[in-house]
Amino acid sequence: MPFSVDLNGKFQLPLRIVDSFVVAPMMGWAHELKAGQYIRLTDPRGKQCGDFWSFNANDLSEHLSAMHTRVWVNKLCPVPGESFHTNHRRPILQLIADTCGIHDLLTAACDPHRYRLYGVQSEHRSCAGNLKEVMAPYWGEGIPFYVPQPFNVFANVPIGADGSVLNGPAPSKAGDYIVLKAWIDQIVAISACPQEFNPITGWYPTELNVDILEAELSDAR
Amino acid sequence: MPFSVDLNGKFQLPLRIVDSFVVAPMMGWAHELKAGQYIRLTDPRGKQCGDFWSFNANDLSEHLSAMHTRVWVNKLCPVPGESFHTNHRRPILQLIADTCGIHDLLTAACDPHRYRLYGVQSEHRSCAGNLKEVMAPYWGEGIPFYVPQPFNVFANVPIGADGSVLNGPAPSKAGDYIVLKAWIDQIVAISACPQEFNPITGWYPTELNVDILEAELSDAR
Repeated sequence: MPFSVDLNGKFQLPLRIVDSFVVAPMMGWAHELKAGQYIRLTDPRGKQCGDFWSFNANDLSEHLSAMHTRVWVNKLCPVPGESFHTNHRRPILQLIADTCGIHDLLTAACDPHRYRLYGVQSEHRSCAGNLKEVMAPYWGEGIPFYVPQPFNVFANVPIGADGSVLNGPAPSKAGDYIVLKAWIDQIVAISACPQEFNPITGWYPTELNVDILEAELSDAR
Repeated sequence: MPFSVDLNGKFQLPLRIVDSFVVAPMMGWAHELKAGQYIRLTDPRGKQCGDFWSFNANDLSEHLSAMHTRVWVNKLCPVPGESFHTNHRRPILQLIADTCGIHDLLTAACDPHRYRLYGVQSEHRSCAGNLKEVMAPYWGEGIPFYVPQPFNVFANVPIGADGSVLNGPAPSKAGDYIVLKAWIDQIVAISACPQEFNPITGWYPTELNVDILEAELSDAR
């Protein structure tokens, strides 16, 4: 299925969808992404953020790293054309297109500890838990799993001039998407955030759509 | 040796020094800190930043976490009176006093990958390497070691209104210090940053001084 990504209003990048998935509300998803492939993450209903991780397929201890990316791009979050980097200071994914423009690269994934602080006494799904669940087949048994800081797609965490870090209203409209291009073979993981206790999901968690895409024309790289 | 910490110009907290250490230039250091003890980190010459980590003494997989701390204090970095939190969303250290006021909680520790990008062909000490070295006796063999994001004491990383993240000149004057109070038994680790390729150490790495302190009077907590 053909699909063209608009690059800064100047160039069209013709892509074709080779696989499509739905990340169910409050659930996780992981999949291989080959070097040169693209991934599109779409919020079909609006106001739903997704926690995003990526791991080198050949060495899962190398992963997209927020703290290394900030140093590389000299920004709180990459903008289209810039790349996310790993804890080995290598590019792993390039941000190709972004119809929303508001994302967060500062805050931890929600986790069971956070829901306990909200007063939840029973089990509650979490982005950290979703990541562990979907990475288990790749990660293997008995190896301590560390949850890296996620790239929080469609999450609105404005920074005040005084250094304040707050949650803003969910910024995505229905159909908003980002497209990322893989620099290396990797395992990508997404959690459709189950957070219903703050505005980050519009107070109502919904699903996310994922497409794997390839270039119609040969990549000049 | 008695020592009083000024709390916001209003109260004096009488402490006594029970142990003192020098973190040699470009080297690391780690030590146990008991719940209720205080640690003072001093820059004796000025313009030297220190990468700081802390781990729950009873479960090293719980540690001071920048991404969880930002969410808790709703700031890019705690100010005196506020606490650093762990990846279990618990307070681990309270910032008690701070004569400098400029620190960084956004950027990764320098590591061998970074020095290779600067063109260093041979071995170069790094804060990440220093942490691994000094934590080895606590961490144990054969367990993959993850380097959490450090609290970069006396590091000047100004954030622009446009979200830019840059390095500013080293802010500390000779004798500047911070004091932190331990909420739980922990292992603290410090690296006297060996970075001589940017202004974060004033282009010339020097040593840091560490004191372990206890309250002269009984703690009301």
